[in-house]
Amino acid sequence: MTREMEIICVGNELLIGKTLNTNAQWIAKQATTLGITVKRITVVADDVNEIATAVRETLKRKPQFTITTGGLGPTFDDKTLEGIAKALNRKLEINTKALKMVREKFEAYAREKGTETVELTPPRIKMATLPEKAEPLSNPVGTAPGVRIDTEETMLIVLPGVPSEMEAIFHETATSLLEQASDKSVFYEKSIYADRVMESSLAPLIDKVMRDNPGVYVKSHPKGRENRPHIEIHVSITAREAEKSEEKLQKAIRQLSSEIGKIGGKVVVD
Amino acid sequence: MTREMEIICVGNELLIGKTLNTNAQWIAKQATTLGITVKRITVVADDVNEIATAVRETLKRKPQFTITTGGLGPTFDDKTLEGIAKALNRKLEINTKALKMVREKFEAYAREKGTETVELTPPRIKMATLPEKAEPLSNPVGTAPGVRIDTEETMLIVLPGVPSEMEAIFHETATSLLEQASDKSVFYEKSIYADRVMESSLAPLIDKVMRDNPGVYVKSHPKGRENRPHIEIHVSITAREAEKSEEKLQKAIRQLSSEIGKIGGKVVVD
Repeated sequence: MTREMEIICVGNELLIGKTLNTNAQWIAKQATTLGITVKRITVVADDVNEIATAVRETLKRKPQFTITTGGLGPTFDDKTLEGIAKALNRKLEINTKALKMVREKFEAYAREKGTETVELTPPRIKMATLPEKAEPLSNPVGTAPGVRIDTEETMLIVLPGVPSEMEAIFHETATSLLEQASDKSVFYEKSIYADRVMESSLAPLIDKVMRDNPGVYVKSHPKGRENRPHIEIHVSITAREAEKSEEKLQKAIRQLSSEIGKIGGKVVVD
Repeated sequence: MTREMEIICVGNELLIGKTLNTNAQWIAKQATTLGITVKRITVVADDVNEIATAVRETLKRKPQFTITTGGLGPTFDDKTLEGIAKALNRKLEINTKALKMVREKFEAYAREKGTETVELTPPRIKMATLPEKAEPLSNPVGTAPGVRIDTEETMLIVLPGVPSEMEAIFHETATSLLEQASDKSVFYEKSIYADRVMESSLAPLIDKVMRDNPGVYVKSHPKGRENRPHIEIHVSITAREAEKSEEKLQKAIRQLSSEIGKIGGKVVVD
């Protein structure tokens, strides 16, 4: 059985189309590579109730992991931890370890600038105010720590929305948490491209190849226009044994290529 | 009251991180520009039950519009209409109008190629198999029609996942449906940039400006590193009266710039 994950992205900027959700893609790719199945991505606004509702709904589905992005900063509309606290019925409290992380960051910035005092203003203390029983995750490139919260069935990993910070905390902490929990299965994929054949003519061949190659998933992605067809065919498998999986993938691709040739298509392999 | 929309994107490629979800951003931007509030974006797999569950959950929240993307093509894993039919307890049936659209497309392609017969194979008929009481939407650049389905509270607009096809059907049909339903409110936005000031120092100023300018939303987006701060400040308003809104936006920006100057920040306006 592969492990499951959901991703919740918090941010009005995603809902007004200002920002492209590269975070969701990046995390989905990392998780997939580690053999974890991403089941759902949800994007909600900077609103405590919207966040709490989405988190509650996700936890009901009991994924092993849930990663959230966004809403951890110092401003009034950074509400992710408040939303999570509400969803979990936990109080928010100043987390000593998180406060130490935040203070050390501001001390380092002050030293760089040659200024002396570091004032822990309410917006700065806010970044260290976490739900009870939470573990702050060190942020190597910014001030707001990430947060890990264990619930009965799900490990919540709460990351900032700034991509460089999200990725840095992910690499430093989340990767190893996901690896530890993983059943060591790995994701293999390869794309081939078919010209001179329409997607609707490929459909029965894809059915056949998937029937003949259990475990292999084949999906067509039209890239040209339906009357000037150029179709990417993405072939993938998630499995434990490296060698056998590669073999299975290659076998499916050979069969697919031969079938496409039979109906007059031209296959291009990268 | 502004009108609300949810977006549901169907596709394994989004959940394995193969494809960046540009469709959700594009639709969110279009809707926002038309004065419609996008409340949630949900991404699910090519799986009938996952799709049906997401659609059912969305309809329970009663947004005026729900737009789905993906899963309309001819292959086995194009399951969006089956999922929607399941969510709505409606049967799937060959839609005469949709079948005519599909047939005409294939006849046109055949004429272009100089071949004679057009075979309406099962994968092609599949693209014209819609839930009962659905209205096909002409696809100017591909074969799978879009679909409009009216439920008691929500208009479902079902679009393909190929961006050029999604955008073409949106422009040809969805824009006017959204405009008709809109209360004519419009979205105004402008960004300014602040240097030499940290986000945690901006936080109280943003609070103040939002308190003093009701209806205006201000959100900071750190673009540099916290110790070399370069912060985008996005100021927006959704309202009916064009002139007053622009004025309100400008007033908020002037106040924000002045406040940032007072704490030693440097403001750059595009």
